[in-house]
Amino acid sequence: MTDIMQELKEIVGESVSSSPGERCCYAGDASQITGMPDFVVRPQSTSQVSRILRLCSKRLIAVTARGAGTGLAGGCSPVRGGIVLDMSAMNRILEIDIENQQVIVEPGVVAEKLNSALRPYGFFFPPDPGSLAMCTIGGMISNNSSGMRSVKYGTVRNYVLDLEVVLADGKVLHTGKKVLKSSAGYDLTRLFVGSEGTLGIITQAGLKISPLPSARKLILACFEEAEIAGQAVIEIFASGITPSACEILDRTTLQVLKLCDPLLAIPEDGDIILFEVDGTEQSTSEAAEQICQISQHTAKSVRIALGREMDSIWAARRLVGAAISRLDPSKTRIYMGEDVGVPIKEIPALIKKVQQITTKLDIPAMKYGHIGDGNLHVALFIDVMSEEQWQKLQLAADRIHRAAMELGGTVSSEHGIGLARAHYLPEQMGDEAFIVMRSIKNALDSQGILNPGKMGL
Amino acid sequence: MTDIMQELKEIVGESVSSSPGERCCYAGDASQITGMPDFVVRPQSTSQVSRILRLCSKRLIAVTARGAGTGLAGGCSPVRGGIVLDMSAMNRILEIDIENQQVIVEPGVVAEKLNSALRPYGFFFPPDPGSLAMCTIGGMISNNSSGMRSVKYGTVRNYVLDLEVVLADGKVLHTGKKVLKSSAGYDLTRLFVGSEGTLGIITQAGLKISPLPSARKLILACFEEAEIAGQAVIEIFASGITPSACEILDRTTLQVLKLCDPLLAIPEDGDIILFEVDGTEQSTSEAAEQICQISQHTAKSVRIALGREMDSIWAARRLVGAAISRLDPSKTRIYMGEDVGVPIKEIPALIKKVQQITTKLDIPAMKYGHIGDGNLHVALFIDVMSEEQWQKLQLAADRIHRAAMELGGTVSSEHGIGLARAHYLPEQMGDEAFIVMRSIKNALDSQGILNPGKMGL
Repeated sequence: MTDIMQELKEIVGESVSSSPGERCCYAGDASQITGMPDFVVRPQSTSQVSRILRLCSKRLIAVTARGAGTGLAGGCSPVRGGIVLDMSAMNRILEIDIENQQVIVEPGVVAEKLNSALRPYGFFFPPDPGSLAMCTIGGMISNNSSGMRSVKYGTVRNYVLDLEVVLADGKVLHTGKKVLKSSAGYDLTRLFVGSEGTLGIITQAGLKISPLPSARKLILACFEEAEIAGQAVIEIFASGITPSACEILDRTTLQVLKLCDPLLAIPEDGDIILFEVDGTEQSTSEAAEQICQISQHTAKSVRIALGREMDSIWAARRLVGAAISRLDPSKTRIYMGEDVGVPIKEIPALIKKVQQITTKLDIPAMKYGHIGDGNLHVALFIDVMSEEQWQKLQLAADRIHRAAMELGGTVSSEHGIGLARAHYLPEQMGDEAFIVMRSIKNALDSQGILNPGKMGL
Repeated sequence: MTDIMQELKEIVGESVSSSPGERCCYAGDASQITGMPDFVVRPQSTSQVSRILRLCSKRLIAVTARGAGTGLAGGCSPVRGGIVLDMSAMNRILEIDIENQQVIVEPGVVAEKLNSALRPYGFFFPPDPGSLAMCTIGGMISNNSSGMRSVKYGTVRNYVLDLEVVLADGKVLHTGKKVLKSSAGYDLTRLFVGSEGTLGIITQAGLKISPLPSARKLILACFEEAEIAGQAVIEIFASGITPSACEILDRTTLQVLKLCDPLLAIPEDGDIILFEVDGTEQSTSEAAEQICQISQHTAKSVRIALGREMDSIWAARRLVGAAISRLDPSKTRIYMGEDVGVPIKEIPALIKKVQQITTKLDIPAMKYGHIGDGNLHVALFIDVMSEEQWQKLQLAADRIHRAAMELGGTVSSEHGIGLARAHYLPEQMGDEAFIVMRSIKNALDSQGILNPGKMGL
């Protein structure tokens, strides 16, 4: 151990630690999954990362890359020890190239900081996870993150043009070019996107950016039941409108929202769909009007929110995942079974199923999420001091995951597999596909040093 | 050979041939690259494809899948003999699911037929290669095709949700689910998209579809020089407008257009940019107005075309690649160096470079293409009876490919690598990335029976 420490110091100087306190800080992410690393290393450059990986390869040391640690599946928890590579020091925006509609960033850049830098140019990086204010681009790429606006703008996968990646043996490659479109060779870019640090360490990313829309409007539609709400969403999509966000908030979620911001003029006696449309002033007016027309057939109430009210509603919506304990301070939200997704038209069936599961197990649940792309966030909250409630929680999460798969869906829409959902992956992908995935892992990291134990690898 | 024929007959009945005439028909695509297959097999089902691949795996027979043969890089030319798998008989649209915004199709479905089937629902499959009327979905997926509207809508890659693939050993897998978004495992879907039949045979595809825009408008802007035109494009994009198409047509292209349709009211004394905007009536009016305003500072003339005139212009534009011989009936267009791409702001530099190359070699060239995503189609035409002109053509094509790479671009934006551009791939990707690509090929097709010789594999 001492000589490894010495070798690491030769590479990164003082940016390495094996102190128990520091290692403890890097034991996990925002999930329950932890593992103690032997070393925390904070590289400053691609060449440092390359040298670290060469060392790890030679000594068979596990390497787990980490951004801001906001993940919800244990993706960056070093469950097999070894080195945690804290990429947060590689946080430079290297180039903003508006004419080519792209930026080049290091992986430690925080998403919101990138957007702040782009705002003066009238551009933005569209993927918007709830953790936008703190998560890093590297983490977003590794999980193929998205968020509320992916229904219109797509996921991170759609915005990555090029990655600089350090392979397990320390070799450095680029997966793409500064072009918006290319049909030249296997799509290595998308292979690394969503691979959760198991195939290589991302040290630089070329990202496509998009023009900021000049106008946005928010439509609040309140429905008697989630199933009716789901039906309205299907009708609106089938009519040809693509909202920039389409979120469902169930009754429980609405109560939490009200506790977050008592001034919000939000109905509490139903399930709400928030439709956002963006574009020009005229086009958003047209689309908002159409959404109102379609949904008013089945909704209890529909109205348009603008300006400051819209901002307040979105701000409260962003808080809702964390603010759930306001409903019952003795209970804590645990992120399990929180990210399932199904085909859009199965959303009502999924909501019903989740209701049955949580009622039967007597676990309070808040259901909200990106109904526009079939992604339902189920927030289960329990008294964490009760062993019985933990067991029920695990049972509920397992049933929710299985319900999603039975409806043709996915155990994770945007949070990733990590360790939390690893045991579902062969079933979800099918054995043959999982074997292909494993063979790719073996081809790129035959010694299995990169984020070992994750994704069932 | 006789017993292989017998085994193939046991699998596909009479849908196999080894007659010289039939084999000759399947020797190539729309490029110059040919190779004689030993057998032509026309499977009807996934299980037939699976059985054929098991046979090929056992007997080490090369297998090259083929759609409509419209490719321009020799991608489906069976250069190592063996079996051509003609997928055109697997041409059913299995499901149109408007509520979930997706369709399930077999690979032999012709793209335009899919769009015809979707039109009554007000939906479409956005990727639109020039060969839309005849190319198959399987071929489009294998090449990551796109076309004029990818500047707004993206390439095929953005629309594939799930693939059913038969691997080299005959095993069948699905790469995805019927969900619009998923972060669960490596992105096998995108690995197969653009892999040109070298990793597996696609037997079914789940595709995302989009609502048809209710309005379209076309803006014709004529510029003194291509470089000024390129600058206007950059300004328009930087202003936040995303046209649904953005095509450049140089003077030579305009002459051909006029010969195709003498009634077209198109200026001939400059380089033209065609901007299309789509969306609602109001939003397209707004965007068209803005484009006119920005481009009129530097353009010689700008105007908006609507309705039938717009359709005529697009129809002529689609013909232009094939119609070039009208300019000089003794010359034929040869597709070489025809699909390069560069970062948008390098387009003027690329145009200038191509001009220099073709002038120096005295080969007439027509330059047009998807300037909005940096993709320039260079049409070189020669007297095919002249050996000297063939040599010059090859030299010109090579220099054009190298010019694109020097400008940070790609040797293929949308037509693929096949054999025509295989020798550039290690240089374009970089050796390290190419080695990763090869290791993935080895992991999935260790015997190298799938489309051997293509993409440098």
